[in-house]
Amino acid sequence: MGRQPIRWGIGIDVGGSSIKSGLVGEDGTVEAFAQHRLERVDEAGLLLNAISGEATRARQQAEALGFEVAGVGVCAPGSLETATGIIHKAPNLPGLDRLPLRDRLTEALAGPIHLANDVNAAALGESCFGAGQGHRHFAMVALGTGIGGGLILDGRLYTGAAGFAAEIGHIVVDPDGPACPCGNVGCLERYAGAAGIVETARRLLADGDIESPLAALPEDRLTPEHISEAAAAGDALSRQVLAETGRWLGIAFITLINLLDPECIVLGGGVAQAGAPLFDAIRSTLEGRTMSSTARSVPVVAARLGTQAGMVGAGALALWPERG
Amino acid sequence: MGRQPIRWGIGIDVGGSSIKSGLVGEDGTVEAFAQHRLERVDEAGLLLNAISGEATRARQQAEALGFEVAGVGVCAPGSLETATGIIHKAPNLPGLDRLPLRDRLTEALAGPIHLANDVNAAALGESCFGAGQGHRHFAMVALGTGIGGGLILDGRLYTGAAGFAAEIGHIVVDPDGPACPCGNVGCLERYAGAAGIVETARRLLADGDIESPLAALPEDRLTPEHISEAAAAGDALSRQVLAETGRWLGIAFITLINLLDPECIVLGGGVAQAGAPLFDAIRSTLEGRTMSSTARSVPVVAARLGTQAGMVGAGALALWPERG
Repeated sequence: MGRQPIRWGIGIDVGGSSIKSGLVGEDGTVEAFAQHRLERVDEAGLLLNAISGEATRARQQAEALGFEVAGVGVCAPGSLETATGIIHKAPNLPGLDRLPLRDRLTEALAGPIHLANDVNAAALGESCFGAGQGHRHFAMVALGTGIGGGLILDGRLYTGAAGFAAEIGHIVVDPDGPACPCGNVGCLERYAGAAGIVETARRLLADGDIESPLAALPEDRLTPEHISEAAAAGDALSRQVLAETGRWLGIAFITLINLLDPECIVLGGGVAQAGAPLFDAIRSTLEGRTMSSTARSVPVVAARLGTQAGMVGAGALALWPERG
Repeated sequence: MGRQPIRWGIGIDVGGSSIKSGLVGEDGTVEAFAQHRLERVDEAGLLLNAISGEATRARQQAEALGFEVAGVGVCAPGSLETATGIIHKAPNLPGLDRLPLRDRLTEALAGPIHLANDVNAAALGESCFGAGQGHRHFAMVALGTGIGGGLILDGRLYTGAAGFAAEIGHIVVDPDGPACPCGNVGCLERYAGAAGIVETARRLLADGDIESPLAALPEDRLTPEHISEAAAAGDALSRQVLAETGRWLGIAFITLINLLDPECIVLGGGVAQAGAPLFDAIRSTLEGRTMSSTARSVPVVAARLGTQAGMVGAGALALWPERG
């Protein structure tokens, strides 16, 4: 006997520099994956063409393969307003900002599409096929240029009243901290986003207390990747940077845990590749500060779907819209 | 034509000094309300007797009135573990701490009961009949000796993986703040709980910069109520205390808003009686720090059910267990 036929969702992840698409099966299999560079991200028409082009391509490939397609899911960075299907605040994709994206895509594709914020989609992807499998309540945190978040509560994406929930990067960690472009001060992102991490490294380099190979790099070229690599190679200063980053993440996670009592926190994004030096600092901060009376020990685990998480989650949303 | 017959829930609120009970109708009417002092709160047997005594009394009154009773709901302070029906960390009710409360009450009443944490119950009460009516997502914050919380998400109580969610008093507002008995540092409760508010007043009195009638009170007798009353009478120092308290609450609420995107925040408990001087400080903190790009303006509104909120919510839980 052959395998049961399964349904497939078309998943499309529109990022600041590339668009990813593929067919996502009910069992988590990905077929017909493609990634293309986006040359222009400031023109709505070009972006809409790119998205509907990928949807058409994926649909044709599904047809050729004899796959039943359940629908199309699209994710992009920014705050997605549920009621209108408009994305606000997408600095890396100015062409999409304030565009009635859901309506325009529905028109272009002559059929309904499912929209989500990129990290929200990634959370759903991890929930269906990754590190969040089997968990009813968890938080996904994506560490990159910014810090994105996604909440799976009661087994589905929680997006709040307007769609703007899960801004984990904007948990306040210092009431008198530096200004954040969001309008607040002392947001987690200011410390543990890429710029914040580099700032910590620059401060420690300027202190001059610890010798480091990072000192040889031009200051304006320093990235979290350099820091992770140097830490892995044993650089004490880089390890100190990751320890401080992990402490800030841990402080924010305490708040997250006390508010939402999740089963776990899933950590993804490029910066999470730093691995043990970062995760250890988070863990020790949590251990030192968690409410002792209820003895909660919430695991912080690495995401499993890597750079395809958003695309896979968008496909999952097309397969199971009721979880979005 | 007469009114449609409605169903009634028995609501029981076990507090640190008294037990409240009553019949809560589907339309929010309360009948047969009673409040009794609890002489001993350290003995499980006496507390269980008091609770089942109230349940029996309410059931008899319902019978006399010809009311159909849907069930019994009980709320108490502390962290209620969902799976076991055990309350952890109930310093004001040591007799209930770690007692298998649900099992013991089910046995005593020869029938199922519905349990909730007190502020969780209050949130459900406000959701059904109070300031949360018509809102799908909101947070309830009760300002008293401690700071309790309740979350209504997607129209029902959100209690998390183990039942320990909504610890709004343990949002971290200062990463290097004073130790909190919970094991963390810089929790909201340390600043805006009763002891924190009194501490702020003592500090300002010691500074001696502002004359205040509070200076005439013995320091160890000072309460948030004195401060609220003096503020209402125009005392500048007391207003400053409430402004600082409101600022800390506002900082925590920013985190709450960025994480959960609620429709509103409902503020109850004795300290919320301070009114405008407190609410204004919260509002101005929110206005100064809310994410501007999404232009969210989340109202902070006064609770409407007063000291009966927990009892009413426990009754609502008996009427609609699926919302718990």
